[in-house]
Amino acid sequence: MRIEARLAELGLTLPPLLTMPGVKLPFDSVRVLGDRAVVSGHGAQGPDGRLVGPFGKVGAEVTEEQGYAAARSVALSMIASLQRTLGDLDRITAWVKLLGMVNSAPDFDRQPAVINGASDLILEVFGDAGRHARSAVGVAALPWRIAVEIEGEVLIRP
Amino acid sequence: MRIEARLAELGLTLPPLLTMPGVKLPFDSVRVLGDRAVVSGHGAQGPDGRLVGPFGKVGAEVTEEQGYAAARSVALSMIASLQRTLGDLDRITAWVKLLGMVNSAPDFDRQPAVINGASDLILEVFGDAGRHARSAVGVAALPWRIAVEIEGEVLIRP
Amino acid sequence: MRIEARLAELGLTLPPLLTMPGVKLPFDSVRVLGDRAVVSGHGAQGPDGRLVGPFGKVGAEVTEEQGYAAARSVALSMIASLQRTLGDLDRITAWVKLLGMVNSAPDFDRQPAVINGASDLILEVFGDAGRHARSAVGVAALPWRIAVEIEGEVLIRP
Repeated sequence: MRIEARLAELGLTLPPLLTMPGVKLPFDSVRVLGDRAVVSGHGAQGPDGRLVGPFGKVGAEVTEEQGYAAARSVALSMIASLQRTLGDLDRITAWVKLLGMVNSAPDFDRQPAVINGASDLILEVFGDAGRHARSAVGVAALPWRIAVEIEGEVLIRP
Repeated sequence: MRIEARLAELGLTLPPLLTMPGVKLPFDSVRVLGDRAVVSGHGAQGPDGRLVGPFGKVGAEVTEEQGYAAARSVALSMIASLQRTLGDLDRITAWVKLLGMVNSAPDFDRQPAVINGASDLILEVFGDAGRHARSAVGVAALPWRIAVEIEGEVLIRP
Repeated sequence: MRIEARLAELGLTLPPLLTMPGVKLPFDSVRVLGDRAVVSGHGAQGPDGRLVGPFGKVGAEVTEEQGYAAARSVALSMIASLQRTLGDLDRITAWVKLLGMVNSAPDFDRQPAVINGASDLILEVFGDAGRHARSAVGVAALPWRIAVEIEGEVLIRP
Protein backbone atom coordinates (compact mmCIF):
# COMPACT_ATOMS: atom_id res chain seq x y z
CA MET A 1 0.00 0.00 0.00
CA ARG A 2 2.78 2.41 -0.97
CA ILE A 3 0.51 4.89 -2.78
CA GLU A 4 -2.08 4.94 0.00
CA ALA A 5 0.72 5.69 2.47
CA ARG A 6 1.92 8.45 0.18
CA LEU A 7 -1.59 9.97 0.05
CA ALA A 8 -1.76 9.93 3.86
CA GLU A 9 1.72 11.47 4.10
CA LEU A 10 0.53 14.31 1.85
CA GLY A 11 -2.65 14.72 3.92
CA LEU A 12 -4.84 13.80 0.94
CA THR A 13 -8.20 12.06 1.33
CA LEU A 14 -9.96 10.30 -1.56
CA PRO A 15 -13.66 11.13 -2.06
CA PRO A 16 -16.29 8.36 -1.89
CA LEU A 17 -18.28 7.08 -4.88
CA LEU A 18 -19.99 9.82 -6.91
CA THR A 19 -23.45 10.54 -5.55
CA MET A 20 -25.92 11.90 -8.09
CA PRO A 21 -29.46 11.07 -6.98
CA GLY A 22 -31.81 10.48 -9.91
CA VAL A 23 -29.09 10.79 -12.55
CA LYS A 24 -28.46 7.93 -14.98
CA LEU A 25 -24.78 7.38 -15.78
CA PRO A 26 -24.70 4.28 -18.02
CA PHE A 27 -20.92 3.91 -18.20
CA ASP A 28 -17.99 2.68 -16.11
CA SER A 29 -15.98 5.26 -14.19
CA VAL A 30 -12.94 3.09 -14.99
CA ARG A 31 -12.86 0.47 -17.75
CA VAL A 32 -10.18 -2.18 -17.21
CA LEU A 33 -9.03 -4.22 -20.21
CA GLY A 34 -5.83 -6.22 -19.82
CA ASP A 35 -3.08 -3.89 -18.65
CA ARG A 36 -5.05 -0.74 -19.49
CA ALA A 37 -7.38 1.15 -17.17
CA VAL A 38 -9.27 3.86 -19.02
CA VAL A 39 -10.64 6.58 -16.75
CA SER A 40 -13.89 8.35 -17.66
CA GLY A 41 -14.29 12.11 -17.45
CA HIS A 42 -14.35 13.11 -13.77
CA GLY A 43 -15.25 16.28 -11.87
CA ALA A 44 -14.29 17.58 -8.43
CA GLN A 45 -16.14 15.87 -5.56
CA GLY A 46 -16.74 16.79 -1.96
CA PRO A 47 -16.33 14.50 1.10
CA ASP A 48 -19.96 13.34 0.64
CA GLY A 49 -19.32 12.20 -2.94
CA ARG A 50 -21.29 15.01 -4.55
CA LEU A 51 -19.89 17.24 -7.27
CA VAL A 52 -18.60 20.49 -5.79
CA GLY A 53 -17.76 23.90 -7.16
CA PRO A 54 -16.30 26.02 -8.43
CA PHE A 55 -19.12 26.06 -11.00
CA GLY A 56 -19.09 28.17 -14.14
CA LYS A 57 -16.52 29.34 -16.65
CA VAL A 58 -12.88 29.92 -15.80
CA GLY A 59 -12.00 33.44 -16.84
CA ALA A 60 -15.50 34.64 -15.91
CA GLU A 61 -17.16 33.33 -12.69
CA VAL A 62 -14.15 31.15 -11.76
CA THR A 63 -10.55 32.35 -11.28
CA GLU A 64 -7.47 30.56 -12.58
CA GLU A 65 -6.47 29.76 -8.98
CA GLN A 66 -9.88 28.23 -8.25
CA GLY A 67 -9.53 26.26 -11.50
CA TYR A 68 -6.12 24.95 -10.40
CA ALA A 69 -7.61 23.79 -7.08
CA ALA A 70 -10.53 22.18 -8.93
CA ALA A 71 -8.17 20.28 -11.25
CA ARG A 72 -6.30 19.03 -8.18
CA SER A 73 -9.61 17.74 -6.77
CA VAL A 74 -10.50 16.14 -10.09
CA ALA A 75 -7.25 14.16 -9.96
CA LEU A 76 -8.23 12.93 -6.48
CA SER A 77 -11.63 11.85 -7.86
CA MET A 78 -9.87 9.92 -10.64
CA ILE A 79 -7.51 8.26 -8.16
CA ALA A 80 -10.49 7.37 -5.92
CA SER A 81 -12.26 5.68 -8.86
CA LEU A 82 -9.06 3.80 -9.69
CA GLN A 83 -8.77 2.69 -6.05
CA ARG A 84 -12.33 1.35 -6.00
CA THR A 85 -11.92 -0.45 -9.34
CA LEU A 86 -8.40 -1.83 -8.87
CA GLY A 87 -8.53 -2.50 -5.13
CA ASP A 88 -4.89 -1.48 -4.76
CA LEU A 89 -3.41 1.69 -6.25
CA ASP A 90 0.03 0.06 -6.25
CA ARG A 91 -1.18 -1.93 -9.28
CA ILE A 92 -0.74 1.27 -11.33
CA THR A 93 2.59 0.98 -13.12
CA ALA A 94 2.37 4.13 -15.27
CA TRP A 95 0.07 7.00 -16.06
CA VAL A 96 -0.41 7.29 -19.83
CA LYS A 97 -2.32 10.48 -20.52
CA LEU A 98 -4.74 13.15 -19.36
CA LEU A 99 -7.20 15.13 -21.44
CA GLY A 100 -8.02 18.22 -19.41
CA MET A 101 -11.12 20.16 -20.40
CA VAL A 102 -11.62 23.59 -18.86
CA ASN A 103 -15.04 25.25 -18.96
CA SER A 104 -13.68 28.47 -20.46
CA ALA A 105 -14.78 32.00 -21.11
CA PRO A 106 -14.09 32.66 -24.82
CA ASP A 107 -11.03 34.83 -24.07
CA PHE A 108 -9.50 32.65 -21.32
CA ASP A 109 -6.25 31.14 -22.60
CA ARG A 110 -4.48 29.74 -19.53
CA GLN A 111 -5.91 26.20 -19.59
CA PRO A 112 -2.44 24.68 -18.96
CA ALA A 113 -2.10 26.62 -15.68
CA VAL A 114 -5.46 25.17 -14.61
CA ILE A 115 -4.78 21.54 -15.58
CA ASN A 116 -1.38 21.76 -13.86
CA GLY A 117 -3.41 21.22 -10.67
CA ALA A 118 -4.04 17.64 -11.78
CA SER A 119 -0.59 17.01 -13.24
CA ASP A 120 1.16 18.34 -10.14
CA LEU A 121 -0.91 16.19 -7.80
CA ILE A 122 -0.42 13.02 -9.84
CA LEU A 123 3.35 13.59 -9.95
CA GLU A 124 3.45 14.30 -6.17
CA VAL A 125 1.58 11.08 -5.42
CA PHE A 126 2.96 8.67 -8.05
CA GLY A 127 6.45 10.08 -8.67
CA ASP A 128 8.03 8.89 -11.89
CA ALA A 129 5.11 6.52 -12.63
CA GLY A 130 2.89 9.59 -12.64
CA ARG A 131 4.47 11.02 -15.76
CA HIS A 132 1.94 11.47 -18.55
CA ALA A 133 1.14 12.97 -21.93
CA ARG A 134 -1.46 15.72 -21.70
CA SER A 135 -3.71 18.11 -23.54
CA ALA A 136 -5.42 21.11 -22.00
CA VAL A 137 -8.25 22.77 -23.91
CA GLY A 138 -11.10 25.17 -23.34
CA VAL A 139 -14.58 23.76 -23.86
CA ALA A 140 -17.81 25.70 -24.29
CA ALA A 141 -19.73 23.97 -21.51
CA LEU A 142 -19.44 21.07 -19.06
CA PRO A 143 -21.96 18.84 -17.27
CA TRP A 144 -23.63 20.47 -14.26
CA ARG A 145 -21.53 23.59 -14.95
CA ILE A 146 -18.40 22.08 -13.38
CA ALA A 147 -15.28 24.13 -14.11
CA VAL A 148 -12.95 21.23 -14.97
CA GLU A 149 -13.45 17.72 -16.39
CA ILE A 150 -10.51 15.36 -16.94
CA GLU A 151 -10.29 11.90 -18.48
CA GLY A 152 -7.21 9.72 -18.68
CA GLU A 153 -5.57 6.33 -18.91
CA VAL A 154 -3.15 4.35 -16.76
CA LEU A 155 -1.34 1.05 -17.18
CA ILE A 156 -1.74 -1.60 -14.49
CA ARG A 157 -0.47 -4.97 -13.39
CA PRO A 158 -3.30 -7.22 -14.59
CA MET B 1 -23.64 -13.09 -36.68
CA ARG B 2 -24.94 -12.67 -33.14
CA ILE B 3 -24.71 -8.86 -33.10
CA GLU B 4 -26.37 -8.48 -36.51
CA ALA B 5 -29.23 -10.67 -35.26
CA ARG B 6 -29.47 -8.50 -32.16
CA LEU B 7 -29.65 -5.33 -34.31
CA ALA B 8 -32.45 -6.88 -36.35
CA GLU B 9 -34.27 -7.97 -33.18
CA LEU B 10 -34.15 -4.36 -31.96
CA GLY B 11 -35.37 -3.08 -35.34
CA LEU B 12 -32.14 -1.15 -35.93
CA THR B 13 -30.69 -0.54 -39.39
CA LEU B 14 -27.09 0.52 -39.97
CA PRO B 15 -26.54 3.47 -42.33
CA PRO B 16 -24.43 3.06 -45.48
CA LEU B 17 -20.98 4.62 -46.03
CA LEU B 18 -20.84 8.36 -45.35
CA THR B 19 -21.67 10.32 -48.50
CA MET B 20 -20.15 13.80 -48.67
CA PRO B 21 -19.79 14.84 -52.33
CA GLY B 22 -16.78 17.07 -52.91
CA VAL B 23 -15.49 16.80 -49.35
CA LYS B 24 -11.99 15.50 -48.69
CA LEU B 25 -11.72 13.30 -45.60
CA PRO B 26 -8.12 12.06 -45.54
CA PHE B 27 -8.45 9.67 -42.61
CA ASP B 28 -9.79 6.21 -41.81
CA SER B 29 -13.25 5.98 -40.25
CA VAL B 30 -11.85 3.04 -38.25
CA ARG B 31 -8.13 2.36 -37.75
CA VAL B 32 -7.38 -1.27 -36.89
CA LEU B 33 -4.05 -2.08 -35.24
CA GLY B 34 -3.67 -5.49 -33.61
CA ASP B 35 -6.54 -6.00 -31.21
CA ARG B 36 -7.52 -2.32 -31.17
CA ALA B 37 -10.03 -0.64 -33.49
CA VAL B 38 -9.99 3.13 -33.05
CA VAL B 39 -13.15 4.83 -34.28
CA SER B 40 -12.97 8.35 -35.74
CA GLY B 41 -15.42 11.07 -34.79
CA HIS B 42 -18.82 10.23 -36.32
CA GLY B 43 -22.06 12.14 -36.82
CA ALA B 44 -25.67 11.00 -37.30
CA GLN B 45 -26.41 9.69 -40.81
CA GLY B 46 -29.59 9.15 -42.76
CA PRO B 47 -30.52 6.03 -44.78
CA ASP B 48 -28.77 7.56 -47.83
CA GLY B 49 -25.48 7.92 -45.97
CA ARG B 50 -25.65 11.71 -45.69
CA LEU B 51 -25.26 13.57 -42.41
CA VAL B 52 -28.66 14.41 -40.95
CA GLY B 53 -29.91 16.87 -38.37
CA PRO B 54 -30.58 17.97 -35.80
CA PHE B 55 -28.14 20.76 -36.71
CA GLY B 56 -27.09 23.53 -34.36
CA LYS B 57 -26.43 23.88 -30.66
CA VAL B 58 -28.13 21.78 -28.02
CA GLY B 59 -29.74 24.13 -25.52
CA ALA B 60 -30.51 26.61 -28.30
CA GLU B 61 -31.79 25.32 -31.68
CA VAL B 62 -31.71 21.65 -30.58
CA THR B 63 -33.49 20.16 -27.55
CA GLU B 64 -31.97 17.67 -25.13
CA GLU B 65 -34.38 14.99 -26.44
CA GLN B 66 -33.32 15.64 -30.04
CA GLY B 67 -29.70 15.48 -28.86
CA TYR B 68 -30.34 12.10 -27.21
CA ALA B 69 -31.85 10.76 -30.46
CA ALA B 70 -28.89 12.16 -32.42
CA ALA B 71 -26.38 10.46 -30.09
CA ARG B 72 -28.26 7.19 -30.62
CA SER B 73 -27.91 7.65 -34.39
CA VAL B 74 -24.21 8.48 -34.01
CA ALA B 75 -23.69 5.15 -32.24
CA LEU B 76 -25.36 3.41 -35.21
CA SER B 77 -22.99 5.25 -37.58
CA MET B 78 -20.01 4.07 -35.52
CA ILE B 79 -21.28 0.49 -35.50
CA ALA B 80 -21.85 0.68 -39.28
CA SER B 81 -18.23 1.81 -39.82
CA LEU B 82 -17.02 -1.01 -37.58
CA GLN B 83 -19.14 -3.49 -39.56
CA ARG B 84 -17.64 -2.33 -42.88
CA THR B 85 -14.08 -2.40 -41.53
CA LEU B 86 -14.22 -5.62 -39.51
CA GLY B 87 -16.60 -7.59 -41.73
CA ASP B 88 -18.20 -9.20 -38.68
CA LEU B 89 -19.35 -7.26 -35.62
CA ASP B 90 -18.97 -10.40 -33.50
CA ARG B 91 -15.21 -9.76 -33.66
CA ILE B 92 -15.76 -6.95 -31.14
CA THR B 93 -14.84 -8.35 -27.73
CA ALA B 94 -15.16 -5.14 -25.68
CA TRP B 95 -15.95 -1.48 -26.04
CA VAL B 96 -13.20 0.61 -24.44
CA LYS B 97 -14.33 4.22 -24.42
CA LEU B 98 -16.43 6.98 -25.92
CA LEU B 99 -15.63 10.69 -26.11
CA GLY B 100 -18.95 12.42 -26.65
CA MET B 101 -18.85 15.98 -27.88
CA VAL B 102 -22.07 17.98 -27.81
CA ASN B 103 -22.40 21.20 -29.83
CA SER B 104 -23.54 23.24 -26.86
CA ALA B 105 -25.06 26.60 -26.10
CA PRO B 106 -22.80 28.22 -23.47
CA ASP B 107 -25.31 27.58 -20.65
CA PHE B 108 -26.30 24.01 -21.61
CA ASP B 109 -25.00 21.61 -18.96
CA ARG B 110 -26.77 18.30 -19.61
CA GLN B 111 -24.23 16.72 -21.99
CA PRO B 112 -24.40 13.37 -20.14
CA ALA B 113 -28.17 13.11 -20.80
CA VAL B 114 -27.43 13.64 -24.51
CA ILE B 115 -24.55 11.17 -24.80
CA ASN B 116 -26.63 8.57 -22.92
CA GLY B 117 -28.31 8.04 -26.30
CA ALA B 118 -25.09 6.42 -27.55
CA SER B 119 -24.25 4.58 -24.32
CA ASP B 120 -27.76 3.15 -24.01
CA LEU B 121 -27.77 1.89 -27.61
CA ILE B 122 -24.33 0.29 -27.35
CA LEU B 123 -25.33 -1.49 -24.12
CA GLU B 124 -28.63 -2.67 -25.68
CA VAL B 125 -26.82 -4.11 -28.68
CA PHE B 126 -23.58 -5.45 -27.18
CA GLY B 127 -24.66 -6.27 -23.61
CA ASP B 128 -21.77 -6.65 -21.18
CA ALA B 129 -19.18 -6.24 -23.97
CA GLY B 130 -20.69 -2.82 -24.59
CA ARG B 131 -19.53 -1.43 -21.25
CA HIS B 132 -17.23 1.55 -21.70
CA ALA B 133 -15.47 4.50 -20.10
CA ARG B 134 -16.88 7.82 -21.25
CA SER B 135 -16.58 11.57 -21.23
CA ALA B 136 -19.32 13.99 -22.27
CA VAL B 137 -18.38 17.59 -22.92
CA GLY B 138 -19.79 20.67 -24.57
CA VAL B 139 -17.86 21.98 -27.56
CA ALA B 140 -18.13 25.40 -29.19
CA ALA B 141 -18.79 24.16 -32.73
CA LEU B 142 -18.88 20.95 -34.76
CA PRO B 143 -18.33 20.14 -38.44
CA TRP B 144 -21.32 20.95 -40.67
CA ARG B 145 -23.17 22.15 -37.54
CA ILE B 146 -23.99 18.61 -36.42
CA ALA B 147 -25.31 18.49 -32.85
CA VAL B 148 -23.28 15.50 -31.65
CA GLU B 149 -19.91 13.98 -32.61
CA ILE B 150 -18.57 10.86 -30.89
CA GLU B 151 -15.26 9.02 -31.20
CA GLY B 152 -14.31 5.79 -29.48
CA GLU B 153 -12.32 2.59 -29.29
CA VAL B 154 -13.16 -1.10 -29.20
CA LEU B 155 -11.10 -4.27 -28.76
CA ILE B 156 -11.38 -6.99 -31.38
CA ARG B 157 -10.33 -10.54 -32.15
CA PRO B 158 -7.48 -9.88 -34.60
CA MET C 1 16.72 7.48 -41.71
CA ARG C 2 14.02 7.02 -44.34
CA ILE C 3 11.53 9.49 -42.79
CA GLU C 4 14.18 12.18 -42.26
CA ALA C 5 15.15 11.82 -45.92
CA ARG C 6 11.50 12.13 -46.86
CA LEU C 7 11.15 15.33 -44.79
CA ALA C 8 14.19 16.80 -46.56
CA GLU C 9 12.83 15.76 -49.96
CA LEU C 10 9.60 17.64 -49.16
CA GLY C 11 11.59 20.68 -47.97
CA LEU C 12 10.21 20.34 -44.43
CA THR C 13 12.17 21.40 -41.34
CA LEU C 14 11.27 20.25 -37.83
CA PRO C 15 11.06 22.96 -35.14
CA PRO C 16 13.32 22.78 -32.06
CA LEU C 17 12.11 22.05 -28.52
CA LEU C 18 9.22 24.25 -27.38
CA THR C 19 10.52 27.44 -25.76
CA MET C 20 8.18 29.00 -23.21
CA PRO C 21 10.22 31.06 -20.73
CA GLY C 22 8.70 31.06 -17.24
CA VAL C 23 5.92 28.59 -18.12
CA LYS C 24 5.58 25.37 -16.16
CA LEU C 25 4.59 22.37 -18.30
CA PRO C 26 4.64 19.38 -15.92
CA PHE C 27 3.99 16.68 -18.54
CA ASP C 28 5.82 14.75 -21.24
CA SER C 29 5.43 15.96 -24.82
CA VAL C 30 5.51 12.27 -25.81
CA ARG C 31 4.86 9.40 -23.37
CA VAL C 32 6.35 6.10 -24.52
CA LEU C 33 4.99 2.89 -23.03
CA GLY C 34 5.86 -0.36 -24.77
CA ASP C 35 4.90 -0.05 -28.41
CA ARG C 36 2.73 3.04 -27.87
CA ALA C 37 3.90 6.65 -28.07
CA VAL C 38 1.19 9.03 -26.89
CA VAL C 39 1.64 12.58 -28.14
CA SER C 40 0.49 15.52 -25.98
CA GLY C 41 -1.46 18.42 -27.40
CA HIS C 42 0.83 20.49 -29.62
CA GLY C 43 0.64 23.93 -31.23
CA ALA C 44 2.39 25.48 -34.24
CA GLN C 45 6.00 26.50 -33.55
CA GLY C 46 8.42 28.83 -35.27
CA PRO C 47 12.07 28.09 -36.12
CA ASP C 48 13.08 29.41 -32.67
CA GLY C 49 10.82 26.92 -30.88
CA ARG C 50 8.27 29.53 -29.79
CA LEU C 51 4.54 29.18 -30.43
CA VAL C 52 3.57 31.13 -33.53
CA GLY C 53 0.32 32.47 -34.92
CA PRO C 54 -2.20 32.53 -36.29
CA PHE C 55 -3.73 33.39 -32.91
CA GLY C 56 -7.44 33.68 -32.26
CA LYS C 57 -10.58 31.94 -33.44
CA VAL C 58 -10.93 30.38 -36.86
CA GLY C 59 -13.98 31.87 -38.52
CA ALA C 60 -13.31 35.23 -36.85
CA GLU C 61 -9.70 36.53 -36.63
CA VAL C 62 -8.26 33.49 -38.44
CA THR C 63 -9.26 32.23 -41.90
CA GLU C 64 -9.81 28.59 -42.83
CA GLU C 65 -6.69 28.73 -45.04
CA GLN C 66 -4.58 30.07 -42.18
CA GLY C 67 -6.05 27.34 -39.99
CA TYR C 68 -5.05 24.68 -42.54
CA ALA C 69 -1.47 26.03 -42.58
CA ALA C 70 -1.43 26.09 -38.77
CA ALA C 71 -2.58 22.45 -38.59
CA ARG C 72 0.23 21.54 -40.98
CA SER C 73 2.72 23.24 -38.66
CA VAL C 74 1.22 21.48 -35.64
CA ALA C 75 1.88 18.13 -37.34
CA LEU C 76 5.52 19.19 -37.79
CA SER C 77 5.70 20.07 -34.08
CA MET C 78 4.32 16.63 -33.20
CA ILE C 79 6.82 14.90 -35.51
CA ALA C 80 9.65 16.98 -34.00
CA SER C 81 8.69 15.86 -30.48
CA LEU C 82 8.53 12.25 -31.67
CA GLN C 83 11.97 12.65 -33.23
CA ARG C 84 13.48 13.97 -29.98
CA THR C 85 11.83 11.26 -27.88
CA LEU C 86 12.35 8.27 -30.17
CA GLY C 87 15.71 9.27 -31.66
CA ASP C 88 14.73 7.80 -35.01
CA LEU C 89 11.41 8.50 -36.75
CA ASP C 90 11.72 5.21 -38.64
CA ARG C 91 10.75 3.50 -35.38
CA ILE C 92 7.18 4.69 -36.05
CA THR C 93 5.32 1.73 -37.54
CA ALA C 94 1.82 3.26 -37.65
CA TRP C 95 -0.08 6.38 -36.74
CA VAL C 96 -3.12 5.51 -34.63
CA LYS C 97 -5.19 8.65 -34.21
CA LEU C 98 -5.39 12.43 -34.09
CA LEU C 99 -7.73 14.58 -32.04
CA GLY C 100 -7.80 17.97 -33.76
CA MET C 101 -9.14 20.88 -31.75
CA VAL C 102 -9.85 24.11 -33.60
CA ASN C 103 -10.27 27.37 -31.67
CA SER C 104 -13.60 28.18 -33.32
CA ALA C 105 -15.98 31.06 -33.67
CA PRO C 106 -19.42 29.72 -32.60
CA ASP C 107 -20.67 29.58 -36.21
CA PHE C 108 -17.51 28.11 -37.81
CA ASP C 109 -18.25 24.57 -39.00
CA ARG C 110 -15.35 23.60 -41.25
CA GLN C 111 -13.03 22.04 -38.64
CA PRO C 112 -12.29 19.05 -40.94
CA ALA C 113 -10.92 21.37 -43.65
CA VAL C 114 -8.59 22.87 -41.03
CA ILE C 115 -7.36 19.61 -39.52
CA ASN C 116 -6.76 18.25 -43.04
CA GLY C 117 -3.55 20.31 -42.88
CA ALA C 118 -2.19 17.85 -40.32
CA SER C 119 -3.63 14.71 -41.92
CA ASP C 120 -2.30 15.66 -45.37
CA LEU C 121 1.20 16.32 -44.04
CA ILE C 122 1.37 13.10 -42.05
CA LEU C 123 0.25 11.09 -45.08
CA GLU C 124 2.77 12.88 -47.33
CA VAL C 125 5.61 12.10 -44.94
CA PHE C 126 4.71 8.64 -43.63
CA GLY C 127 2.75 7.18 -46.54
CA ASP C 128 0.61 4.20 -45.65
CA ALA C 129 1.97 4.14 -42.06
CA GLY C 130 0.57 7.65 -41.69
CA ARG C 131 -3.03 6.49 -41.94
CA HIS C 132 -5.01 7.38 -38.82
CA ALA C 133 -8.40 7.68 -37.17
CA ARG C 134 -9.36 11.28 -36.49
CA SER C 135 -11.80 13.67 -34.90
CA ALA C 136 -12.02 17.38 -35.65
CA VAL C 137 -13.98 19.59 -33.27
CA GLY C 138 -14.41 23.24 -32.43
CA VAL C 139 -13.33 24.27 -28.94
CA ALA C 140 -14.21 27.48 -27.10
CA ALA C 141 -10.64 28.50 -26.32
CA LEU C 142 -7.06 27.22 -26.53
CA PRO C 143 -3.86 27.92 -24.56
CA TRP C 144 -2.14 31.19 -25.51
CA ARG C 145 -4.93 31.77 -28.06
CA ILE C 146 -3.39 29.35 -30.56
CA ALA C 147 -5.75 28.52 -33.43
CA VAL C 148 -5.16 24.74 -33.54
CA GLU C 149 -4.11 22.13 -30.97
CA ILE C 150 -3.71 18.47 -31.90
CA GLU C 151 -2.93 15.39 -29.81
CA GLY C 152 -2.36 11.87 -31.10
CA GLU C 153 -0.87 8.42 -30.80
CA VAL C 154 1.54 6.33 -32.85
CA LEU C 155 2.82 2.78 -32.61
CA ILE C 156 6.56 2.18 -32.50
CA ARG C 157 9.17 -0.53 -32.59
CA PRO C 158 10.11 -0.72 -28.86
